[in-house]
Amino acid sequence: MSRLEAILAKVDANMPTSIAGLKHLLTFPSVSSQPDCKAGIIACAKWLQTQLDDLGFNAEVAETEGHPLVLARTPSPGGALRALFYGHYDVQPAEPIEAWHSPPFQPMIREEEGLTRIYARGASDSKSQLWSVIEAFRAWKFVAGDLPLEAVVVLEGEEEIGSPSLAQIVERYRDLLSCDVAFICDSDMWTSTRPAITTRLKGLFHEKVTIHAPNGDLHSGHFGNVAMNPVRVLAGILASIHDERGQVAIEGFYEGVRPLPAALREQWQSLDPAEALAGVSTEGGPEWDACGPFELIWARPSIDLNGIVGGNTGPGERSVLPGSATARLSFRLVDGQSPEQVRSIFRRFVEANLPQGARAEFEGQGGTSAVLVNENSPYIAAAARALEAEWGEPTLLKGSGGTIPIVELLMRELAVVDCIVTGFILADDAIHAPNERYDANRLRKGIRSWVRIIDEVGKL
Amino acid sequence: MSRLEAILAKVDANMPTSIAGLKHLLTFPSVSSQPDCKAGIIACAKWLQTQLDDLGFNAEVAETEGHPLVLARTPSPGGALRALFYGHYDVQPAEPIEAWHSPPFQPMIREEEGLTRIYARGASDSKSQLWSVIEAFRAWKFVAGDLPLEAVVVLEGEEEIGSPSLAQIVERYRDLLSCDVAFICDSDMWTSTRPAITTRLKGLFHEKVTIHAPNGDLHSGHFGNVAMNPVRVLAGILASIHDERGQVAIEGFYEGVRPLPAALREQWQSLDPAEALAGVSTEGGPEWDACGPFELIWARPSIDLNGIVGGNTGPGERSVLPGSATARLSFRLVDGQSPEQVRSIFRRFVEANLPQGARAEFEGQGGTSAVLVNENSPYIAAAARALEAEWGEPTLLKGSGGTIPIVELLMRELAVVDCIVTGFILADDAIHAPNERYDANRLRKGIRSWVRIIDEVGKL
Repeated sequence: MSRLEAILAKVDANMPTSIAGLKHLLTFPSVSSQPDCKAGIIACAKWLQTQLDDLGFNAEVAETEGHPLVLARTPSPGGALRALFYGHYDVQPAEPIEAWHSPPFQPMIREEEGLTRIYARGASDSKSQLWSVIEAFRAWKFVAGDLPLEAVVVLEGEEEIGSPSLAQIVERYRDLLSCDVAFICDSDMWTSTRPAITTRLKGLFHEKVTIHAPNGDLHSGHFGNVAMNPVRVLAGILASIHDERGQVAIEGFYEGVRPLPAALREQWQSLDPAEALAGVSTEGGPEWDACGPFELIWARPSIDLNGIVGGNTGPGERSVLPGSATARLSFRLVDGQSPEQVRSIFRRFVEANLPQGARAEFEGQGGTSAVLVNENSPYIAAAARALEAEWGEPTLLKGSGGTIPIVELLMRELAVVDCIVTGFILADDAIHAPNERYDANRLRKGIRSWVRIIDEVGKL
Repeated sequence: MSRLEAILAKVDANMPTSIAGLKHLLTFPSVSSQPDCKAGIIACAKWLQTQLDDLGFNAEVAETEGHPLVLARTPSPGGALRALFYGHYDVQPAEPIEAWHSPPFQPMIREEEGLTRIYARGASDSKSQLWSVIEAFRAWKFVAGDLPLEAVVVLEGEEEIGSPSLAQIVERYRDLLSCDVAFICDSDMWTSTRPAITTRLKGLFHEKVTIHAPNGDLHSGHFGNVAMNPVRVLAGILASIHDERGQVAIEGFYEGVRPLPAALREQWQSLDPAEALAGVSTEGGPEWDACGPFELIWARPSIDLNGIVGGNTGPGERSVLPGSATARLSFRLVDGQSPEQVRSIFRRFVEANLPQGARAEFEGQGGTSAVLVNENSPYIAAAARALEAEWGEPTLLKGSGGTIPIVELLMRELAVVDCIVTGFILADDAIHAPNERYDANRLRKGIRSWVRIIDEVGKL
């Protein structure tokens, strides 16, 4: 039995412990956007530090103005190459709680459809992803003693809120984080059997806009026909963001967006939409033109309405003209757009559409630009080989509609050319939604994949 | 001193007790639309029953499938004429609670702007109104022993939710409620010095519409450019209800609405908008055409967005495509429109504007039609004389944008021709809004007004 085979066998043997560890990690309510989850964030970071210390890493909880990161490194070089492994331990809010069939922070195992599924917020995005890497380190350490590379681990607590403290951390830990290759362990597979590496990520920023009418709440009968209704104003503005085909109709929004290279477009058009959409209906969504769905998801920007609230939200009737109404939006950007420019275009658009007497209040700052990584890197080739060896199907180089701010920072600030974004999330894991889930077989093969990637890259 | 003067002097002398009684009445959280206020509703009805019993009425709490009414009558005829006095003890929800400067069900007295103001939910709409009538009865009883008419009192607990049980009650108590004249004590003055009788009331129904997308909540990055966003669908539908000038653009909505008689239009155009709008800005509201604001408020129908909710409502960011979004609307109708017809036109409009794959769910039933009362009635003339005597300015016969379902029922079911809708609410009382208020001087003059109206009508 080769060393690699011995480590993989150790992974398989260790599965009950790996699942138990993931379940413990999923009990922390580490929702980065909700102030009352601060204790869950802190407890989660401390527990992860202990796990890494136990593996012989030098681990610390690095404080920021927001939520802390867990930083760790192997005590001795262990190889010629320094590799960074990034994951995030924060999660999206679990609301609406009543839509879950089991409590979101009490992981529930269900045997269904031939799978052992774990239901919890963060089960897929992204606690299983970082845990797969930690469990791969554990198997390596048990069988081989050392990793074949110097590993630096970064576990962030603010990914789901746009990583506001990450730029500071990259500046403060410049030496530690400078690396030959960075593995970003927070991405998805193509299908449940075909692995993928994501080479394009979208940019992202959030914006909250509140329309204030000149009056406070008013009686709808007395003033409905003469006074401004801010819900109507907001609805009008939101409805005019897109044209009838679902394209953004705000002037200047697509400025700087370059056409996709013809070869890439052709390659993406050959992919089967059904394989990646995983049962999600696109009925009534934006129209696909010649470009097809993957160009829309991976390479065309979008403005998405995340939420709206104003006036009476129930339970009873209230015959009121509300004094204000609020919308929350996320902006997904592509190469050629910057958060600053698009935010300013959006705010001008809202202001230009306000009736006399209405006032718009904006909240939102910062954001992340899109990234394209070098698809011809030898590290990508090595990782792709390792993934294919584990899964038995060729690794797809693909885009993503998601955003991982650290990639842009590593490339721009630390000149890390080779960022390898991969992971084992599937489109039907219900990430960012109720009843998020993962399955034990993907956890096992994910850990084995990281064992193989470390082995392949360690040889470079 | 005449008998009338003696009764009026008794009202003045009794003011500290009258204010204390109103304050007690305002402590009951009798919000008819909120299930957890049921206890407040019951307690309020029982307390009012006791108050009327103490005045020598035969009072009962009449149960319904919803909230009870308080019904009472004078034990002996007391005069040739039977007069019904209607008020309602239920109130609108107090939300948003945080916008109140004192708790909405802990009445707070403030001396400000030369007035003694009472702040509480229901202070103006409508507990002060029914209390003014009860206090007028009390002064009459103290000085004269009997009223100069047979009085029937109806205090409703479901006015703010569209009076769903009232039709049953009118049927069940047909004999008791049949009367020569009905006083509807739930309306407003023209200005703080000029009394008014409302001869036109709008109809009203509520509708809740939820747009369901074909999917549940989705990740906004992965699916924003390809899947339906129900907030966008709802915003589009809401934005297309009105045209650019603020008129309803739904085909058939204005069908049956008759033009205002030229003489009435001319009279209304001579009124000063500033006097009735009481500081409410009409900036950015629907455009006034030649008809002027009072025709819009009193004689043109409206569709009003009362509230909207969907997806992330905070506190943190959530990068989600919501699975559904909900709007609440109130429809204010005029003579010639029926709730059934307009509701069906609205639902067809929503269905016709749904994209493929979206589903609309509607909640809402019943409603009230508009009413026009006979302006040439001798009872109106008598009440107008009494009001002018108290306030020193001529009584204005006007319309209202509000709705009081009992008027339509009395006219249609019991053929009560003379319904006199009056009261002492002012446009700046913040009814249906935070920091609702009333003032002690209006309470005093309101009680005195009812003393005089009873006197004048008793002579007929």
